[in-house]
Amino acid sequence: MSAAYTELCDHMRQIGHLSSVTHLAGWDQETYMPEKGVAARSDQQAILAGLVHERRTHPHIGELIAACEGDAGLMSDSATAANVREMRRDYDKATKLPKDLVAELAKVGSQAQEAWKKAREKSDFKAFLPWLEQMITLTRRKAECLSKPGAAEAYDALIDLYEPDTTAAQIESTFTPLRAELTTLIQEVRASKVKVNTKCLQAKIPAEAQHKFGLAVLEAMGFDLKAGRLDTTTHPFCEGLSPGDTRLTTRYRDEKFTDALYGTMHEGGHGIYEQGLPKLDKDGKVSPLFGTPLTDAISLGIHESQSRMWENFVGRSKPFIKWALPKSKKYFGKALAKWDVKDLYAAVNTTQPSLIRVEADEGTYNLHVMIRFELERALIGGSMKVKDLPGEWNKRYEEYLGIDVPDDRRGCLQDVHWSFGLFGYFPTYTLGNLYAAQFWEKINQDIPDLAKDIGKGKMHELKVWLNEKIHVHGRRYAAGELCQKITGKPLSAEPLLRHLRKKAEQVYGI
Amino acid sequence: MSAAYTELCDHMRQIGHLSSVTHLAGWDQETYMPEKGVAARSDQQAILAGLVHERRTHPHIGELIAACEGDAGLMSDSATAANVREMRRDYDKATKLPKDLVAELAKVGSQAQEAWKKAREKSDFKAFLPWLEQMITLTRRKAECLSKPGAAEAYDALIDLYEPDTTAAQIESTFTPLRAELTTLIQEVRASKVKVNTKCLQAKIPAEAQHKFGLAVLEAMGFDLKAGRLDTTTHPFCEGLSPGDTRLTTRYRDEKFTDALYGTMHEGGHGIYEQGLPKLDKDGKVSPLFGTPLTDAISLGIHESQSRMWENFVGRSKPFIKWALPKSKKYFGKALAKWDVKDLYAAVNTTQPSLIRVEADEGTYNLHVMIRFELERALIGGSMKVKDLPGEWNKRYEEYLGIDVPDDRRGCLQDVHWSFGLFGYFPTYTLGNLYAAQFWEKINQDIPDLAKDIGKGKMHELKVWLNEKIHVHGRRYAAGELCQKITGKPLSAEPLLRHLRKKAEQVYGI
Repeated sequence: MSAAYTELCDHMRQIGHLSSVTHLAGWDQETYMPEKGVAARSDQQAILAGLVHERRTHPHIGELIAACEGDAGLMSDSATAANVREMRRDYDKATKLPKDLVAELAKVGSQAQEAWKKAREKSDFKAFLPWLEQMITLTRRKAECLSKPGAAEAYDALIDLYEPDTTAAQIESTFTPLRAELTTLIQEVRASKVKVNTKCLQAKIPAEAQHKFGLAVLEAMGFDLKAGRLDTTTHPFCEGLSPGDTRLTTRYRDEKFTDALYGTMHEGGHGIYEQGLPKLDKDGKVSPLFGTPLTDAISLGIHESQSRMWENFVGRSKPFIKWALPKSKKYFGKALAKWDVKDLYAAVNTTQPSLIRVEADEGTYNLHVMIRFELERALIGGSMKVKDLPGEWNKRYEEYLGIDVPDDRRGCLQDVHWSFGLFGYFPTYTLGNLYAAQFWEKINQDIPDLAKDIGKGKMHELKVWLNEKIHVHGRRYAAGELCQKITGKPLSAEPLLRHLRKKAEQVYGI
Repeated sequence: MSAAYTELCDHMRQIGHLSSVTHLAGWDQETYMPEKGVAARSDQQAILAGLVHERRTHPHIGELIAACEGDAGLMSDSATAANVREMRRDYDKATKLPKDLVAELAKVGSQAQEAWKKAREKSDFKAFLPWLEQMITLTRRKAECLSKPGAAEAYDALIDLYEPDTTAAQIESTFTPLRAELTTLIQEVRASKVKVNTKCLQAKIPAEAQHKFGLAVLEAMGFDLKAGRLDTTTHPFCEGLSPGDTRLTTRYRDEKFTDALYGTMHEGGHGIYEQGLPKLDKDGKVSPLFGTPLTDAISLGIHESQSRMWENFVGRSKPFIKWALPKSKKYFGKALAKWDVKDLYAAVNTTQPSLIRVEADEGTYNLHVMIRFELERALIGGSMKVKDLPGEWNKRYEEYLGIDVPDDRRGCLQDVHWSFGLFGYFPTYTLGNLYAAQFWEKINQDIPDLAKDIGKGKMHELKVWLNEKIHVHGRRYAAGELCQKITGKPLSAEPLLRHLRKKAEQVYGI
């Protein structure tokens, strides 16, 4: 092992530990921090972020990476070569942006986000327009700084931040058939005469009972509660806080217990990925590679594939409900006694076009995402004027989802992302669903009894499959490469369409 | 304001924020961290401790302090002069110890603590003897490095770490009459024919009800729950985590609910001190002086005076019980219905010599502490051999408390402190009780209706008194100086003796 590589990994591990501390501070702020602690917490985070950034971008890191790249012996090991390749990617990204641009993005982004909040409340797009224009100008500059030589469009550099080695053109080629087929499917569902009874979702179940059931489900999924926990926050999230420590959150409402259940399974899927990354050695010690790309998640799309798989492919499946419904009696008492598997299955798999992305069902969700992808690509590329956004937004909601957008609050002002410069992020949501579907078909080939097992609450084999095929590699393979390696095919819209069509058949008799 | 002073305060504030993060990581480890997170947490803490130490001991800090000291204009402001004086004290303490000694103390201390755990389990003092000898040798070296010129004994430098500007001789002069009188008082109590019925303490009360009642008591005390919280841990503690964020913990047993109640009031007393330190400005922003001595607690003794005052002088008083007993019904239902104020007052104020310090009652506790003070002073001074410790320990327990020590597990092996080099710390427990008693007499002069107010649950005036007389000054005055300033007298044993004699009269008719 070369001295430069060892030193590089040592630095990365230190940076990883410092990042863990920022994650802890962030988690604590969302969960248990008393409200008056906020001023000091913000100072603490600024100091920690400064320390992490300073270390990540230190010229000596660049020298060490270069030394590794020049060491043919070292690079002959393919895992190590991948690790160095990814460290180079991170270092270049971190050092390519001029300091003044980073500062301006942060400053304007924070103001624009405040402006967005007010504009959304009043459904006043015009008030937000100049801010969005500024953010797009700044983000375009950022994209230009990050762009690879010969890139087809600046927007690609933004996607690359969240979904490395994936381009807008590739995404478009998968999204186009998906959009067309989904639009048709939704029309068919709307034409169906089947009316699903969703009354079972309104069963009133106290938060504490939901929490205990959520823990039982996480345990059945294989989420290690000795290396993680589940708490309550306004916005559910998963934080791979540090090696051996992954924290999930969810939220409970007395009605619609399935929100918390599927929220917990979703975050649990993220959490199982975090726990599966090789951040700890087998003896429970922190891996010498912790903090390097080999112990890190591939991309947001792959992360989302894990959460969506557990939420939708497992959680909303008949076998899972067959196991979960009787299991829930221990916690919920007689609250669901009137309902059977068929009722619950139909109720959690309804398809109904709606205005708000975060409330959308599995069948319509991807259309919301694809609208954002098309629009942000056009905004960054300059083929669409920012002032035309509401019109373009509403036109697509009519065309793809068949619904009228009554105002911008429920239209193009609904998401926070763009207000602080998060462009290139949206498509990863649908990429996650696509990867999940394609992996799921392969998993069911590899584990023929999977449905039967899930019906008995046995999900261990599934978890081990995910661990071995995906998690253990860290960032060794890019998302598309991993998909090809595992399924033998490039990413395609077909598996997801088959999955959604099958559900529409079962629920709506299409 | 001088540029050097401003820069110095900026550095101190940054260090303060980094320390806050270590406090958060420590708090989290005791409360919510999943068990497998421990390896990474220990690495995180080591990195943060390194960053804090590096900054605290940086030569530039020394230069800035020297520049301030040489600035007569700056030093003409007495608060600023006190701040610089205390920064000098901290800097000298932090830089005086050679690195290899610090490392050896940490290494041997950690091994000795493990050896102590095993030795205590087996009550095997001989197995611990060589480790204790090593720790004493190392601690003596540490004391010599820290000693002020002309110090009467090396042990003084250790006391100074926890109780600045206080010497062993001063402590002895207060402890000697206290010990003599307490020994007599305890003999009188033992001779009394009164048998206190303590059955009321065995009322079974669920942890959740105790927790809710604890929060109500904290609120009545004036602990700001928007700037703090109460959680559950094995060992209760208070962590002044960061500005606007003070965290208390307690523990619940189904029986002896008063353990949790008084534990909560004790930590609440510490917490009210932390909240009273001027770490936040009035507008809720972090004070520019946060991290400097003017926003820090004076000493362990003064800190303990605050916790002990709320626990014993308020909490175990008749007026408090008069308020708390009916108040508790809302949370405890009928669990205490059979008992009245007199029963509970007597039960929580029994005096009964016992073997274990942490379980000792208010009347006997200080004798446990004074035994440790005498022994550690002799050990560090060299007038006692380490191998003679068990004999000397047992002799004193017989002489002061009138009880036989059956084995070293319940004797000189009971406390963890010495195993990792915590010498000079024990006397601060009794100093806390002494300061509390002396302040308490003055408070009752200043607030003549205090007992009546407490009987109605009104404790606001008391809290404000503590805020204004003690908390707001930070470390501007040393403990003894503050005592003189507030009470007009140097610290003396008399107020505490008066307090304990009065209770013995009321409970045992002495």
